[in-house]
Amino acid sequence: MRKAENIRLNKEETAVIIIDQTALPNEEIFLEVDTEEACFDAIKLLQVRGAPAIGIFAAFSMYVLSKKWIRLSSEEFLENLRETGTYLNSARPTAVNLSWAVRRLVQLAEKNAALPVPEIIQLLGKEATIIQQEDMEMCFQIASHGLTLLKDGDGILTHCNAGPLATSSYGTALGPILLGKERGMNFHVFADETRPLLQGARLTSYELENAGIDVTLICDNMASVVMKNGWVSKVFVGCDRIAANGDFANKIGTSSVAILANYYHIPVYTLGPSSTIDFSSPSGDEIPIELRDPEEIRTMWYKKAMAPDSVKCYNPSFDITDHTLLSGIITEKGIVYPPFKENLKNLFQ
Amino acid sequence: MRKAENIRLNKEETAVIIIDQTALPNEEIFLEVDTEEACFDAIKLLQVRGAPAIGIFAAFSMYVLSKKWIRLSSEEFLENLRETGTYLNSARPTAVNLSWAVRRLVQLAEKNAALPVPEIIQLLGKEATIIQQEDMEMCFQIASHGLTLLKDGDGILTHCNAGPLATSSYGTALGPILLGKERGMNFHVFADETRPLLQGARLTSYELENAGIDVTLICDNMASVVMKNGWVSKVFVGCDRIAANGDFANKIGTSSVAILANYYHIPVYTLGPSSTIDFSSPSGDEIPIELRDPEEIRTMWYKKAMAPDSVKCYNPSFDITDHTLLSGIITEKGIVYPPFKENLKNLFQ
Repeated sequence: MRKAENIRLNKEETAVIIIDQTALPNEEIFLEVDTEEACFDAIKLLQVRGAPAIGIFAAFSMYVLSKKWIRLSSEEFLENLRETGTYLNSARPTAVNLSWAVRRLVQLAEKNAALPVPEIIQLLGKEATIIQQEDMEMCFQIASHGLTLLKDGDGILTHCNAGPLATSSYGTALGPILLGKERGMNFHVFADETRPLLQGARLTSYELENAGIDVTLICDNMASVVMKNGWVSKVFVGCDRIAANGDFANKIGTSSVAILANYYHIPVYTLGPSSTIDFSSPSGDEIPIELRDPEEIRTMWYKKAMAPDSVKCYNPSFDITDHTLLSGIITEKGIVYPPFKENLKNLFQ
Repeated sequence: MRKAENIRLNKEETAVIIIDQTALPNEEIFLEVDTEEACFDAIKLLQVRGAPAIGIFAAFSMYVLSKKWIRLSSEEFLENLRETGTYLNSARPTAVNLSWAVRRLVQLAEKNAALPVPEIIQLLGKEATIIQQEDMEMCFQIASHGLTLLKDGDGILTHCNAGPLATSSYGTALGPILLGKERGMNFHVFADETRPLLQGARLTSYELENAGIDVTLICDNMASVVMKNGWVSKVFVGCDRIAANGDFANKIGTSSVAILANYYHIPVYTLGPSSTIDFSSPSGDEIPIELRDPEEIRTMWYKKAMAPDSVKCYNPSFDITDHTLLSGIITEKGIVYPPFKENLKNLFQ
């Protein structure tokens, strides 16, 4: 099984080491993150990104930061932990895995409040590692389930990046492709570049090329032609939050891909761990959508003006894909088919 | 009525002056084009772009270049003219206006082959000017017809650039908006940035801002959300070639916009002069689609790597929008509604 290399602790466990995803594919830079602000910025600036990866990173961050409070009272320690959790949560509102991981660590500390603080800290460190290991296991299971839908030679279109960089090992949407490749299968992947921040161009094509998989990079607006040409038999995308009815939030443009695929009669699957399902959101209408800096559209990644300075931009980071456009949800426990509301409930509640 | 400023002759009529559209919006550079190679490059490199503008530019180019052959025999002159036409045509295969304008000048010269060469040259210069004037008149008529579909406060989504820069004066898709503004109406325009070459970001938002029109720039993959939000009541796009059945070629991504609009029950109109209709193409299947340099996707406009150097890219410049997705074709002679095959024929043949 693939190892997780994108998020790990330094030797002294005083910092979280991440590969800076904003520098890829041009440079492989590893950052040592060890302050609250740096952790917040790493999430906000997308140095670490991908819903599961953000959860794992937040858990390790909480552990590393909590070590600084070793001399505090249990009460003060918990107070700091909660505050830090709230602060990190605010970096990105849409992905549910972030708040899920934070809550998991806070609740663990609360449950063990009677223990000496150093022991609570140890528990947090173990829990962060468990979250990462669980994610690796879940990614493998998702990949295995997803692979049952693919056959050798299939054309798969994906949007944004839901590969190893976005998780721990196999990734979600790219997992079945990577696992199939390990088993000698070949696929043709079409990677939407995914404006404005080009995760598809910078990360997906980089990860798939490194894995020796045939990948063709396209602009987001070319998906329609690629589908019309008959080159795509499945759409595989990740998810940042799945509502109880199967509506799901994912990188901006996902709903567009899903509508096009439905028009061309191509099945659409979203792949994610069960931590992505948010039963407290009845539908996509309740999922908050992060609006990001207009400069991401205006000035491109490399800070050159591509539009008049003053032009208004609308820059939502995610969109909601209606469950009626979705063929199935691939989780670590199996593939959920419509009706999603009933079937998600049956499998996970 | 608005004047044409993007394409004109120099004082001595020895060069065509164009605004370099690749330098906008950062710089307003005017180029003097006076060799065959420079004319070809101006079209190929998109220094001049937009189906009607390419036609006008080609006509002026043929005139300017033909002046160099003033001492040739009538036969040699015609031969050169035909060769130059073929050469210019090969710069961009999809837009029909280019070959239409070239053919118009060649046929005029052939018809007048008995005249002395200097007189033929004079006729060509006049014809080029007539083509531009006709385009200005047609743009105004298209704008007037299109405006009958709009009401104050409407939200309009457009793709690529079909404004004054792409034509002579009002543009096609932007014409009704500009004319409405002159008459005191206000619209909210959403401009797709239009990857890979960002004509929407660089040109449409620039032209609309300059005209004082409320414009919001979005990435191509955000059109779905903007439509879902209820902000768009009409889609107005240009066209590079309309087949006899109403299928039309336009900038890559147009079919995607049309499919999304149909999903959200928003009417889609394409706007263009009748020279865009190609009755010799029964459907979109017969329209050649230009494939452009993968570097346009890989390295962005400003030549910075945004994807692994070696990654394969698919870079079609246009796509075909099926006529079933189209509400109407707005031409200088009026609005054509389905069934397009019959109604285009009735109006234009």
